[in-house]
Amino acid sequence: MGMTMTQKILANHAGVESVKAGQFIEANLDIVLGNDITTPVAIKEFEKMGAKEVFHKDKVVIVPDHFTPNKDIKAAQQCKMVREFAYDKEIKNYFEVGEMGIEHALLPEKGLVVAGDVVIGADSHTCTYGALGAFSTGVGSTDMAAGMARGKCWFKVPSAIKFELVGKPTKWVSGKDIILHIIGMIGVDGARYKSMEFVGEGINELSMDDRFTISNMAIEAGGKNGIFIVDEKTMNYMKEHSIKEFKVYESDEDAYYDEVYKIDLGDIRPTVSFPHSPDNTRTIDEVGDVKIDQVVIGSCTNGRIEDLRQAAKVFKGRKVAKGIRAIVFPATQNIYLQAIKEGLMEIFIESGALVSTPTCGPCLGGHMGILAEGERAVATTNRNFVGRMGHTESEVYLASPAVAAASAIMGKIYNPENI
Amino acid sequence: MGMTMTQKILANHAGVESVKAGQFIEANLDIVLGNDITTPVAIKEFEKMGAKEVFHKDKVVIVPDHFTPNKDIKAAQQCKMVREFAYDKEIKNYFEVGEMGIEHALLPEKGLVVAGDVVIGADSHTCTYGALGAFSTGVGSTDMAAGMARGKCWFKVPSAIKFELVGKPTKWVSGKDIILHIIGMIGVDGARYKSMEFVGEGINELSMDDRFTISNMAIEAGGKNGIFIVDEKTMNYMKEHSIKEFKVYESDEDAYYDEVYKIDLGDIRPTVSFPHSPDNTRTIDEVGDVKIDQVVIGSCTNGRIEDLRQAAKVFKGRKVAKGIRAIVFPATQNIYLQAIKEGLMEIFIESGALVSTPTCGPCLGGHMGILAEGERAVATTNRNFVGRMGHTESEVYLASPAVAAASAIMGKIYNPENI
Repeated sequence: MGMTMTQKILANHAGVESVKAGQFIEANLDIVLGNDITTPVAIKEFEKMGAKEVFHKDKVVIVPDHFTPNKDIKAAQQCKMVREFAYDKEIKNYFEVGEMGIEHALLPEKGLVVAGDVVIGADSHTCTYGALGAFSTGVGSTDMAAGMARGKCWFKVPSAIKFELVGKPTKWVSGKDIILHIIGMIGVDGARYKSMEFVGEGINELSMDDRFTISNMAIEAGGKNGIFIVDEKTMNYMKEHSIKEFKVYESDEDAYYDEVYKIDLGDIRPTVSFPHSPDNTRTIDEVGDVKIDQVVIGSCTNGRIEDLRQAAKVFKGRKVAKGIRAIVFPATQNIYLQAIKEGLMEIFIESGALVSTPTCGPCLGGHMGILAEGERAVATTNRNFVGRMGHTESEVYLASPAVAAASAIMGKIYNPENI
Repeated sequence: MGMTMTQKILANHAGVESVKAGQFIEANLDIVLGNDITTPVAIKEFEKMGAKEVFHKDKVVIVPDHFTPNKDIKAAQQCKMVREFAYDKEIKNYFEVGEMGIEHALLPEKGLVVAGDVVIGADSHTCTYGALGAFSTGVGSTDMAAGMARGKCWFKVPSAIKFELVGKPTKWVSGKDIILHIIGMIGVDGARYKSMEFVGEGINELSMDDRFTISNMAIEAGGKNGIFIVDEKTMNYMKEHSIKEFKVYESDEDAYYDEVYKIDLGDIRPTVSFPHSPDNTRTIDEVGDVKIDQVVIGSCTNGRIEDLRQAAKVFKGRKVAKGIRAIVFPATQNIYLQAIKEGLMEIFIESGALVSTPTCGPCLGGHMGILAEGERAVATTNRNFVGRMGHTESEVYLASPAVAAASAIMGKIYNPENI
């Protein structure tokens, strides 16, 4: 029996010829990632283990992005602890506020992850880098600590589900609509501990930013990872951003898949996840009349330049509806700069949206856009669990940047096709 | 005995021919202002009074700027309460996130305050509008409530101190250096319950933004208000921003002043207030070697376009020192837009500073840049009391945008003249 691309990457990093689903292995790590919330816990574990140095000063990456710029004294103390650890251990890839951005947008942009890598991160959306043909997955802070100390992590080799994408999405359908559609189709545990493998000619139609969004939300279907085949776009992206050597893995023709889904991208409609689960999806045609209070455009899921371009197309020459707070967060400082150069920021502000610095902010109920009781937000973020963006009686509707922008203009969930 | 300009404004609004220092009067109000922290308390008092409507739908101004975009659920609930009150009472000048900015930058920009007005605001820096030749002062939430209900407020008529400004400031000396110098000279209670009246030919050398900064910090010398004579610059500013009628008051030649200071602006050096009091000033030549962790450029004191231009001049082509968080907050959405158009935002981001949306944020230890134990910030804000920006063991050094920017580049308090 052949192996999937994920299995091949893991076999290579475990130093063995082959692995099979269900097998436990220990793999060498190319990157160990943490943020300002998870790293303090990992540091304590690291010290408990008696570790003195990190396994590789270039391969540990720390990005204080969740409660930064420091939201309160506790956040400030946590960031200080992380900063001091980074300096003490001479961690090269510690990104200070100002150099930074949201971790999962920053790492690919800085060229720290490439195809064939094995990456663990103490953040569930670490699966984002699958878009580059890497194996990457979220872990707990204890695994992060062990990873920092030893450069290794154990894994149960996942089985896989194949998503064969064909056709071409219509104008306002983006990577976000595709992944929400898939999560709606298979459910939040539909890919539990499995690789979601995205293949097929339809991938040619997807920008790298679309692919990052899709891989980013693999975890919302329970996936261990969400991985794309590597094509010319991926190669060009890596050449532009990275000096690391990459290795392209392809699944064997006789690799086993638990399931295979063929999805015609042309059939997918703009899609919205209703409260309180990402799999509670409706097409834009089925949403009905849902009045909203806030729109959030950004996050590790949808704060990239393509996302901002899509949103700006909708905002341009229009005004945010009265009473709606529309908050735009570019995902990195570079994206922010690019958006200024392209005139997108002017469009947002002239529309009555506000633009803030890169931060995870409201996505996880952190800060910068928390909802009150009874309030509703349309957000390009990744989770809409009870209380995710604030009060337990608030609601989050997940959508694409285009749907979010159209909703900001109309004051209710709205189809960008009709604007 | 003649009257000062402040006394004349108060007499006019009390409907009497003349007033004298120490007299209690009740004056009609042109504007009653509140923010997201003080308005909820005022609303409760308003309701306790049995008030049903506000005295004038155009003259109550509410700006949710302190803990916005909502920093947490409590802030979200407070903003919701304020928003619902504003809608219910049909308050025209309620500014939603996205339309907004920091109150004391926003009101002049929107033309809501002009020369000759009497303004109260439930925020201590309401004294800012003295730069326009208005009487404006901070009050508690109960006075705000009564003001909203009745359109009147009682005042004890203040006596006055005259500051006669002559000469011309040197290149890197701004309004901030002038007011810090004055506060250092007279102390934080040097003008307790007095008008600080700024007159003299030196005023010609000051931009309106310089004057706003100076009036803004009158309260830090204990002043009841800080008022400028109205000149051609003031007139032009009002014509550009407002359609309200204004009235220019001049102090009588025989008006009584408790003290008169003559200050040659050419003698003032870039000035820094050391912890933990605004009057603990040193000239830039006396600061010694003070290493810092964070720089904040913004606030109702120094977040205007001139401030950003000054900072950008220093940042341009230079990089923020390693380990320093440099945070820039334009004071309003319009200033943000203007700064983008002028290329200032690109300069900040290329330097490694971050730019965030208008908010009071870290100035009062709210959010977006809180200090940890032992950390030091150079800030263009207005107060450096113990714990003002975070941990009680942190320190804030008040300075101009140019000094703050130079400090960000060098990683320690630094003279922009030497950069």
